[in-house]
Amino acid sequence: MATLVTGIGELTTNVATDSDACGTLHGAAVRIENGRVAWVGDARRAEPAERVIDVEGAAVIPGFVDSHTHLVFGGDRAEEFAARMTGTPYAAGGIRTTVAATRDASDQALRTRLHGFVAECLSQGTTTLEIKTGYGLDVESEAKLARLAREVTDEVTFLGAHVVPVEYADNRDAYVDLVCGDMLSAVAPYATWIDVFCERGAFDVDESRRVLQAGIEAGLKPRVHGNQLGEGGGVALAVEMGAASVDHCTYLSDHDVALLAGSDTVATLLPGVEFSTKHPYPNARRLLDAGVTVALASDCNPGTSFTTSMPLMIALAVREMGMSPAEAVWAATAGGAAALGRTDVGNLAVGSAAHLAVLRAPSRIHLAYRPGVPMVERVITG
Amino acid sequence: MATLVTGIGELTTNVATDSDACGTLHGAAVRIENGRVAWVGDARRAEPAERVIDVEGAAVIPGFVDSHTHLVFGGDRAEEFAARMTGTPYAAGGIRTTVAATRDASDQALRTRLHGFVAECLSQGTTTLEIKTGYGLDVESEAKLARLAREVTDEVTFLGAHVVPVEYADNRDAYVDLVCGDMLSAVAPYATWIDVFCERGAFDVDESRRVLQAGIEAGLKPRVHGNQLGEGGGVALAVEMGAASVDHCTYLSDHDVALLAGSDTVATLLPGVEFSTKHPYPNARRLLDAGVTVALASDCNPGTSFTTSMPLMIALAVREMGMSPAEAVWAATAGGAAALGRTDVGNLAVGSAAHLAVLRAPSRIHLAYRPGVPMVERVITG
Repeated sequence: MATLVTGIGELTTNVATDSDACGTLHGAAVRIENGRVAWVGDARRAEPAERVIDVEGAAVIPGFVDSHTHLVFGGDRAEEFAARMTGTPYAAGGIRTTVAATRDASDQALRTRLHGFVAECLSQGTTTLEIKTGYGLDVESEAKLARLAREVTDEVTFLGAHVVPVEYADNRDAYVDLVCGDMLSAVAPYATWIDVFCERGAFDVDESRRVLQAGIEAGLKPRVHGNQLGEGGGVALAVEMGAASVDHCTYLSDHDVALLAGSDTVATLLPGVEFSTKHPYPNARRLLDAGVTVALASDCNPGTSFTTSMPLMIALAVREMGMSPAEAVWAATAGGAAALGRTDVGNLAVGSAAHLAVLRAPSRIHLAYRPGVPMVERVITG
Repeated sequence: MATLVTGIGELTTNVATDSDACGTLHGAAVRIENGRVAWVGDARRAEPAERVIDVEGAAVIPGFVDSHTHLVFGGDRAEEFAARMTGTPYAAGGIRTTVAATRDASDQALRTRLHGFVAECLSQGTTTLEIKTGYGLDVESEAKLARLAREVTDEVTFLGAHVVPVEYADNRDAYVDLVCGDMLSAVAPYATWIDVFCERGAFDVDESRRVLQAGIEAGLKPRVHGNQLGEGGGVALAVEMGAASVDHCTYLSDHDVALLAGSDTVATLLPGVEFSTKHPYPNARRLLDAGVTVALASDCNPGTSFTTSMPLMIALAVREMGMSPAEAVWAATAGGAAALGRTDVGNLAVGSAAHLAVLRAPSRIHLAYRPGVPMVERVITG
């Protein structure tokens, strides 16, 4: 059965023209067949379809591609957040707190929560999600998190190298061995990506390279957490390894920017982290002006960015990071797709997945212009 | 018929105790009769009721009181916003653009839009709204805006002194005469409040005092827009006139802070404006530490803050303005009520309006901890 979405006041296709990376059409319609975009064009020239959805002048964009989340976990860290925001000392906290809560949670409790987050994402326009492991940090728990994530997305990332767990605090090498050995073997059947947190306090460049190489040998594709808390080797390692994306990029040297500009590695910026930790925001303008491909993602996690809101990421990118509304919308759709090596989502070219977010607004600008307001009226997914 | 809301994991009553301005209860229930709170206490001691709503451990807060909005207008200014955010020159713009679009709009078009905004506010937990005129700026148009606003709220504010309209650009005194004369007479039947934009580029202190005095003589109560763009006489005038609130307070001298601390005038902070104009945020911490009563409001308007999201105001107050999550929630509920001289809303004392916002979370902290995510599960209004 064909569906025609018509009456689209402003359609963001992300099929670039010389003057418009967003491939914007006005007065457009989209024909959907078998879950794919079958035709895009002037609404007045659309052929009839069995089902017609008239969006009455609304703006329509591709569904958001949130290429960086940590959505399988137990507990929350609200008190730690409140303490951090008010500058109050707080004894516990950190990734290890969530590891303990996650290991304690039942499969069913984790699954119920995960499904709740997926619904929350979808209601806000996110139609493609990456989900990382990294709150298990033992063989059984990491495999469980990957298996649960795989129930809701193909874009599962193995992040056993998130932080060294307490029980290996005095034996880092043995933990890296475990990640590269038994843990990787247990997780790989469910995962597409291998990731590592390459940062002072987490894993150094040599450890990170070992983890990525082991993952690649197991058939996974590399991506990296890097340069979140200071300049370091994360970006250079990501480019060296041909990673699809290096995520955070808050502190970059000129050399890092040049490396990214000369590579196919996407710089994924995660402004929810800076919002929720009071750290300075990354400079998206510097990256864009250098020709780097930029993505926006939520980094949804209970410690440093407990938000699933891609519209807020867009608003923050415009307020704080020097992006135009059009650049930010592109980064949250086509940019996220690039960070996952995907060309079938994040755009509305013929043949792409028919993932459409219908806005309660005549323009995509409203995603930044109306911050905090739920701007996604409905989501159409093929 | 009595309704019992039970299973409340964390209840914010705003009935202050010595150690807790939010009057927080755990494991509580609220009994509602005739639209009012009839009883609040331990859920295990609640008497049966005809209707029971079990919120299953969720946090419940009083509905938000948004004490500063401009929700009756025509058009939008998305292109002006995008230009401002990217530093691009933009010829038109400003309040006068919206005045022209509003004068051009039909009653029914304005009403339909207004009702849409009211529904949008309610869905995000706002149960009491103030609405200003100020986009008509002629007798007939201002009266129309006040009449439409009065259809949806008792808290209507006459803001004929928003800016001097183009047609009076060379004759300011005549415009102030009009505001204080025929315009006031036409609007007063629908309004509760008189307001003035006391700021360089709008109205000076002497003009502002004239407007407020004329309003008071017509039976309206004073409130002031002041100290948004620089230090000036707005705060001092508000305190002198016994205004319920002075709104913006972005630039304050030590003397302004002392005046506020020694008065009953609330300082209403509007961080949506700073978010959407890239101006520095007001310092709420300084005001709170001096003993000033602080409110948070959206200032929803198409020029400088096109958001109705009180949760975002809370998140910004915590991220940017030195407020704790509890202080910010108080300011968005009881603080807003104080700014409107109301004690029957913004709290859940026995006898108050039964306006409850049920959160999708176990704690009010989540309003700041989960920025951008729709956190209001449902709203109960008596």
